[in-house]
Amino acid sequence: MAKKIYDIYGIKLGSASSNTRYGKREDSLVVTVSSEAQLSGKFTSNKLKAAPVTEAIQNLSANEKGSKVLLINAGNANAANGPKGIKDVKKYCKEIASDLNLNHKNIIPFSTGVIGQALPVSNYLKAFREALTVLDSGGWKKAANAILTTDTKPKIVSKEVKVGKKSFLVTGFAKGSGMIRPDFATLLSFVFVDAKLSQSLLNKIHTEALKVSFEAITVDGDTSPNDSSMLIANGNKEKVVRAGSLDERRLTKSIIETFKELAELLVKDAEGATKLIKVKISKAKNPEQARSVAFTVAESPLVKTAMFGSDANWGRILSAIGRDKTVESLDKLQIKLNGLPLVRKGFVDSRYSEKASSDAMKKKRITIEIVIGTGNDKFEVLTSDLSEDYVLINSDYRS
Amino acid sequence: MAKKIYDIYGIKLGSASSNTRYGKREDSLVVTVSSEAQLSGKFTSNKLKAAPVTEAIQNLSANEKGSKVLLINAGNANAANGPKGIKDVKKYCKEIASDLNLNHKNIIPFSTGVIGQALPVSNYLKAFREALTVLDSGGWKKAANAILTTDTKPKIVSKEVKVGKKSFLVTGFAKGSGMIRPDFATLLSFVFVDAKLSQSLLNKIHTEALKVSFEAITVDGDTSPNDSSMLIANGNKEKVVRAGSLDERRLTKSIIETFKELAELLVKDAEGATKLIKVKISKAKNPEQARSVAFTVAESPLVKTAMFGSDANWGRILSAIGRDKTVESLDKLQIKLNGLPLVRKGFVDSRYSEKASSDAMKKKRITIEIVIGTGNDKFEVLTSDLSEDYVLINSDYRS
Repeated sequence: MAKKIYDIYGIKLGSASSNTRYGKREDSLVVTVSSEAQLSGKFTSNKLKAAPVTEAIQNLSANEKGSKVLLINAGNANAANGPKGIKDVKKYCKEIASDLNLNHKNIIPFSTGVIGQALPVSNYLKAFREALTVLDSGGWKKAANAILTTDTKPKIVSKEVKVGKKSFLVTGFAKGSGMIRPDFATLLSFVFVDAKLSQSLLNKIHTEALKVSFEAITVDGDTSPNDSSMLIANGNKEKVVRAGSLDERRLTKSIIETFKELAELLVKDAEGATKLIKVKISKAKNPEQARSVAFTVAESPLVKTAMFGSDANWGRILSAIGRDKTVESLDKLQIKLNGLPLVRKGFVDSRYSEKASSDAMKKKRITIEIVIGTGNDKFEVLTSDLSEDYVLINSDYRS
Repeated sequence: MAKKIYDIYGIKLGSASSNTRYGKREDSLVVTVSSEAQLSGKFTSNKLKAAPVTEAIQNLSANEKGSKVLLINAGNANAANGPKGIKDVKKYCKEIASDLNLNHKNIIPFSTGVIGQALPVSNYLKAFREALTVLDSGGWKKAANAILTTDTKPKIVSKEVKVGKKSFLVTGFAKGSGMIRPDFATLLSFVFVDAKLSQSLLNKIHTEALKVSFEAITVDGDTSPNDSSMLIANGNKEKVVRAGSLDERRLTKSIIETFKELAELLVKDAEGATKLIKVKISKAKNPEQARSVAFTVAESPLVKTAMFGSDANWGRILSAIGRDKTVESLDKLQIKLNGLPLVRKGFVDSRYSEKASSDAMKKKRITIEIVIGTGNDKFEVLTSDLSEDYVLINSDYRS
């Protein structure tokens, strides 16, 4: 957090408290986006879609002229509330639109929190109105804090990319610490770029960035009805980025890094997590096998509890790979843990050392390398260990 | 355990201690089966198959004449030990075969315990030899205890089925409390029947019984390289059972009940379990959807921790269903918990009562009924909750 956070021209942020679930803690965020901006939104693949998600998808696709306003509330997901949920989200979007003389399609809502409880509309509406009175182009830290639920820390990443004399800025913040899995999860992420890009280029970069960030992490395999990722370019006419240019390559790289760093911050702060675990698959038969094995291992409760217990239990890793439906044989399989040999040709590597592996397991960052040996495809997934605290947090009534 | 346990004519059991992992606790079991018997064996679908599993499959398929001897050891799985594992299992099978003047193919080995550590062959061999000196047709309880690993209780089921003047007996025991999942898991199960059946009829009943018992339970989604289920008919000539007869129907029903009761005992004793949860799917589009949704809900860490916390968190159940790949819409979905309405048409049921549901959640047996409403197929799966103790047990070094 000590690092510099770059403001993004044309973006203002304001936050306030709804005085509901979290008492006086700020839980309501407004972000205003200038009318020149391009917005790309990607949403949950869960068939249970929260009311704000269906509303945000509709409003974004209307592509209304004029400035846009993001309304984000924490504490209540407004999910699985049926027709009432839809009515509620429409109500506060319309009110805010009317306050600002905008069409209601210029308002993009996001919610995170408990599923299936009616949203206290008037409280959040009041908070959004209050937030609008304190808009500030430097409000990033407060914004990153206002959207948190079970997270213990705010997550912000900010970068400057220099290409010749030009300088591009990227600043983003995100939240989420459980229910995180590809096709992603109770994840809200907002990344802003100081540049002008075409809508199609922005969408392309967004898809590419998600694939290696929020779609390559998992905490518990569960996903949420509220997951939303926004990539917003402010449309700065002095920083036009064209497809295929050096500018585009550098900026894309920087955006992807921002997404990856945010994703890593999420996994580090995962519910009850004590370790950051990278599962790295190589030489898979095809991309599906690489992905499937990565997630099978990353989500195995027995592997995750062994990691928590600092046990280099390669038998459990091997056994998880063995039950993956895409795997036909373990004959060419190799497993390494932080570079140390565990398994070769499907059984214990003769160079395996219990002592060395146990020492390696004490580290906070663990890399499990799995070489399947049946092809040339690879995939990486980040996950956390499974601790008693995960159970504590999630068995607490209506966390 | 207070119930009567019926001995099965022709079956003798003896147990002893190997003085290895569990000190003086008996951990080595020998079961001798008369030469008239029919044996049906089903084994793990994990591509990582323990050495005793490949050996047992080979020896069973040889269908050698003469009596059979089952050798079961707890404490060491002899899995992922490469060629040495195979050499080791062959060694003690040959020694015991030679002691008893049998072909080595008459010996069927089973192991359960830690993966990837060399089996202390001479210790277990000594124990098997000692067990052979104390064979007893009434040794069921000792046998059920000798095969345990992290289980806290032995699991035995015994039944008598009367058909007219005839009486059939079924007695079985099993072990397993983690890594339990269909295509089943560190599960060893041995069920014996006092009857004569054809090999094909026995196999058919075995497959049918597994489908609704060990293949319909899950603790953590992990499976083991050692899973084995044996259904053995003693070949009693006075109790011939023919396919299609009333005898067959009654006996089959009783065998299926035995398998189901053993499976339920396993889930009740699952690592850290405090509740027995039945997930009951109906009106699914097809059998695959019924099965898929049942396992997605039963294995969701967020659903399982909510169950542990006695929280009727229907939002998490709904969200788990929503991420299942076979589900296209939640519009017709209904969810009930112990008969109480939670969800209707995909959102909270108007008859939902927080108070009544919370009271229902305090029970030790929870039934989650999910009506998908897109067809007519159904499936049931039994699971446990996810507690802090599960994490404690499994993060303990090399449990």
